[in-house]
Amino acid sequence: MDLVDLAAIEAIKKLKARYFYFIDHKDWDGWRNDVFTPDASMLVPEDRPEPRIGIEEIITYLAPILEGVITVHHGHTPQIEITSPTTATGLWAMEDVLIWPTGKRADGFSGRMQGYGHYHETYVHGPSGWRIKSLKLTRLHVRPG
Amino acid sequence: MDLVDLAAIEAIKKLKARYFYFIDHKDWDGWRNDVFTPDASMLVPEDRPEPRIGIEEIITYLAPILEGVITVHHGHTPQIEITSPTTATGLWAMEDVLIWPTGKRADGFSGRMQGYGHYHETYVHGPSGWRIKSLKLTRLHVRPG
Amino acid sequence: MDLVDLAAIEAIKKLKARYFYFIDHKDWDGWRNDVFTPDASMLVPEDRPEPRIGIEEIITYLAPILEGVITVHHGHTPQIEITSPTTATGLWAMEDVLIWPTGKRADGFSGRMQGYGHYHETYVHGPSGWRIKSLKLTRLHVRPG
Repeated sequence: MDLVDLAAIEAIKKLKARYFYFIDHKDWDGWRNDVFTPDASMLVPEDRPEPRIGIEEIITYLAPILEGVITVHHGHTPQIEITSPTTATGLWAMEDVLIWPTGKRADGFSGRMQGYGHYHETYVHGPSGWRIKSLKLTRLHVRPG
Repeated sequence: MDLVDLAAIEAIKKLKARYFYFIDHKDWDGWRNDVFTPDASMLVPEDRPEPRIGIEEIITYLAPILEGVITVHHGHTPQIEITSPTTATGLWAMEDVLIWPTGKRADGFSGRMQGYGHYHETYVHGPSGWRIKSLKLTRLHVRPG
Repeated sequence: MDLVDLAAIEAIKKLKARYFYFIDHKDWDGWRNDVFTPDASMLVPEDRPEPRIGIEEIITYLAPILEGVITVHHGHTPQIEITSPTTATGLWAMEDVLIWPTGKRADGFSGRMQGYGHYHETYVHGPSGWRIKSLKLTRLHVRPG
């Protein structure tokens, strides 16, 4: 690992830190401008088997779902591999806590939901720095309460 | 990011790691000698709107409150910016768990309290290395149970 | 801290990330081949006062205990010290969540158990890179529910 790789790894850690800060503050412009590529994809197999493609589709889907929901997303122990000067992969452990207000969910659930899993990601480096190009979330466990 | 910056970022991550280890072991000398500057400030707006100023005032306030309380503080995904050779800023996601024994709190609460939020910090580099100069804790959510 | 030390610290962080990923996926070959030295020791004083010595003894003990148990292990804010070109120490904050199925435990407990503590570790660098040589887990708190 040389200095360029170490600097890229730290930059990608900070990129993912912005991902977390922005989602938990519902700052979708932050995601749009400082986190994802315009053509980024997000895949949550437990939600649906196909990825959502494009940052606008991702935000259009997520923003209304999370409006009024308290969310906490934490990431842990990244394994980041710099695969070329402009590409990288990452694997992050994660935990999230969502507190759903009454009447928000179609299935009638309200209250606290806690989940654990991993983000499997790819990154690209462009004119504005490192960005998330693809994100897949797998789950170890999800539980209410 | 050059080597000096990367080394400073790693040093500040370890500084914050000591913050967590010492608070959860009630090692206030550790905070005094290895974590904070003598004139450090701590602001927890949900506790009171003014910061506590000076490490002795901080410890005088916190040590008796946390005596006999089991505490767990964890920090995640830091965004550290080195702003000069001797100054830096940091933003950390955090979670804490406190288990209050019966009879400890004036409001009668006992048992488990879990919180989520962010530390907004500044650091300075002096003769003993990096130290926390100011800490502000904001909250996403706090819940009993 | 020079470039060699910074690269070693990042490599050890990734080593510990593999430890977590493999245990939570019950990938014992991963532990055997990519995480521990053959003569590694694991000490969990709350479990028993003597360490288990050797990766095969560790796996022989842990694999059947954790079969069918959902586990989540997260590590935080490492303090890694490179003590020579081939040795290092590490201190990690940790949280784990285990969900025990009915009938698994001899004491009759089933359901969720959540714990907090610290890993105190040593590492060695050999022909395949950094490996965990010894691990001791101390606890701040363990609770059901």
